[in-house]
Amino acid sequence: MLNKQSVMRCISNHGPINRSAIAKMVGLSIPTVMEITDKLLEHGMVVAEMKQGKGQGKRPELLRVCGEHFRFIGVDVGRTTIRIVLVGLDQQIIDMVKYATEDVHCARRFVERICAEIMGLTQRSGVDMDTIVGVCVAMPGLIERESGRVIFSPNFGWEDIPLQGWMNEILPFEVIVENANRVQASWEVFRNPENNRLTVLCVGLGYGIGGGLLQAGKLYYGASGTSGEVGHIPVCHDPYARCSCGNVGCLEAVASGAALAGKARELVERGEDPVLEQLCGGDPERLEAKLVFDAARMGDAHARRIIDQTAEYIGVALAACINLMDPDRIYLCGGMMKNGPEFLEKIKACTLRRQMHNAGRCVVILQGDPDEWNVARGAARVVPYYNWSKESLAFMR
Amino acid sequence: MLNKQSVMRCISNHGPINRSAIAKMVGLSIPTVMEITDKLLEHGMVVAEMKQGKGQGKRPELLRVCGEHFRFIGVDVGRTTIRIVLVGLDQQIIDMVKYATEDVHCARRFVERICAEIMGLTQRSGVDMDTIVGVCVAMPGLIERESGRVIFSPNFGWEDIPLQGWMNEILPFEVIVENANRVQASWEVFRNPENNRLTVLCVGLGYGIGGGLLQAGKLYYGASGTSGEVGHIPVCHDPYARCSCGNVGCLEAVASGAALAGKARELVERGEDPVLEQLCGGDPERLEAKLVFDAARMGDAHARRIIDQTAEYIGVALAACINLMDPDRIYLCGGMMKNGPEFLEKIKACTLRRQMHNAGRCVVILQGDPDEWNVARGAARVVPYYNWSKESLAFMR
Repeated sequence: MLNKQSVMRCISNHGPINRSAIAKMVGLSIPTVMEITDKLLEHGMVVAEMKQGKGQGKRPELLRVCGEHFRFIGVDVGRTTIRIVLVGLDQQIIDMVKYATEDVHCARRFVERICAEIMGLTQRSGVDMDTIVGVCVAMPGLIERESGRVIFSPNFGWEDIPLQGWMNEILPFEVIVENANRVQASWEVFRNPENNRLTVLCVGLGYGIGGGLLQAGKLYYGASGTSGEVGHIPVCHDPYARCSCGNVGCLEAVASGAALAGKARELVERGEDPVLEQLCGGDPERLEAKLVFDAARMGDAHARRIIDQTAEYIGVALAACINLMDPDRIYLCGGMMKNGPEFLEKIKACTLRRQMHNAGRCVVILQGDPDEWNVARGAARVVPYYNWSKESLAFMR
Repeated sequence: MLNKQSVMRCISNHGPINRSAIAKMVGLSIPTVMEITDKLLEHGMVVAEMKQGKGQGKRPELLRVCGEHFRFIGVDVGRTTIRIVLVGLDQQIIDMVKYATEDVHCARRFVERICAEIMGLTQRSGVDMDTIVGVCVAMPGLIERESGRVIFSPNFGWEDIPLQGWMNEILPFEVIVENANRVQASWEVFRNPENNRLTVLCVGLGYGIGGGLLQAGKLYYGASGTSGEVGHIPVCHDPYARCSCGNVGCLEAVASGAALAGKARELVERGEDPVLEQLCGGDPERLEAKLVFDAARMGDAHARRIIDQTAEYIGVALAACINLMDPDRIYLCGGMMKNGPEFLEKIKACTLRRQMHNAGRCVVILQGDPDEWNVARGAARVVPYYNWSKESLAFMR
């Protein structure tokens, strides 16, 4: 199983590539690689090309992943934007769509809209529906893996929503649901194959805050399937810092995009911050985290203090993660990380100050992939690694 | 390797036991079990006994671990007490010694005393020195595993002490050094074989606070070897809550035995707590965590508030651990847990209040083994699983 996946990943990352180069890269014998690649060719998962400059009659030598026979759909359910991509097995994007998140209060209508957008996307793209293997929905919050139920998603106010069940009723494809931060973490491993050997924590800093943990290339779920909830690490004792999860003092309550916007709104409503007031055109409801970063860059002292406090709280939570888990790498992702490199540096300094002296000496804190489509693409890429019923992919297991 | 260890553990836990019962328990074929047990008999690690009520001439059937040929020494280096045990491979204690921790400021003299006590213990016990396989020292703080150096032990004020090297110079046995909370965590797995399949966090609440993490029966060290430092999770922002590690607001700074004693001392010095003053006989220097618990039981409101605050801080740190790692079990161990079951219940209630709603639903928080010798015994038990040079144990690898 692992051999097949290694060969497939090698072709995916390095193709067009010949069989002996694959054998060398993945550490298998040439006969074993031949056996696996013959099966992959038979199932149409890879195609063989002639080496340039060689004559006819020779065995075709260069292999590359074939995008045409297997397609996957990834959905990034963000609190502000929904993004959907259709990709081939070769990871090329065939088509994509995004729209503003709405109707959150009515989960059923929300899900119907996603399904309608997926159907619209596949029809518009003109691909053969039979080549679509499945859909993976990346959703923030606690997910029950087997059933694809959303147990609890604080930022959507959802509790016990049978997301996978509803989508399976509507769509002609198989659907799986995975936590968005786990998808993001998987994406960072897909992007950096050396992460396959490491313990990686991926923290999503956006409207809400979440995390995903990988150990040696495998997602770590925990005893209840709820590991990685970095956003709900307690970081302060302020009884007024109410979190959407129902607790007080969680990281998300004081340092998420939503929290930043809330603090800015208070300032504007009290008439204390003319810079922010101008940036939102006088309408506090239009304030979002990005505008606070903009104001800070413009020299606004209030905004600067908010950003510094935010970095401090994030540093406290990361110090807790490092002291407990001592991971190799921490990737910081999400909308809040798109506001320039100084914020990352601030967080790193705060973390170092709060983590135990001499502990976590190997930990590296990095900016995650800033591409806005990475969660949707990661979701599409997660699909082939699940238990799909399509015969050809079954060979991969 | 794993088969041999499984067979050995099975005999250790269930002996005297016959071979077919072993085969059933560990899930191996009888010929495989025969092959392994023949080797164990040959190396003197197990002995065979006749089944009671059977006649002569039959093959001896019941196997048990032999304590006489292999002995191990475990050292528990506590901040208040040092404990040393000498045990056989059958886990029976042959002899033990304990003494009050002193000379902490001079690490070399401290280590010489431990070595002298070990030599005294082995000579007094009259065991053949050649049967002593090695010593494992359970030490609080950050340990470099390969070299057995103490990188940093806040409660001892040690930085970069070559503990293993010094002891190897003095003692005629091999020495290894392991973090005390990892040893404690291993002990909880030895005691409860079902923990072998689980993610287990063991938190030591004593003079200092530490932790050890096990996943599927294996110690988890982390990228830098410094995982499990629960005591240095930031839990408050009070700039006066200075921790021995150099930071402020660590759990250890506000909720350890040392912190409790410090708070009690302040009260007595300010003349605000007659109950505590009486308990320490008017000498604030004699105040320790146990007396605070005693005062709380006697109805002292100050002491009660200190205990409640302590449980709250521990709950905050455990909530961080649960939200991030979602372990199956958390064992609370160490001196502070010897003050009655109400403290455990308080910590559980605080943790539940601060952990994310709906997350960590499978986590069970338990009292660890309260026996004061468990870390020393755990250390002795850790020895056979290390890379020892003695030929017979080499067979176990």
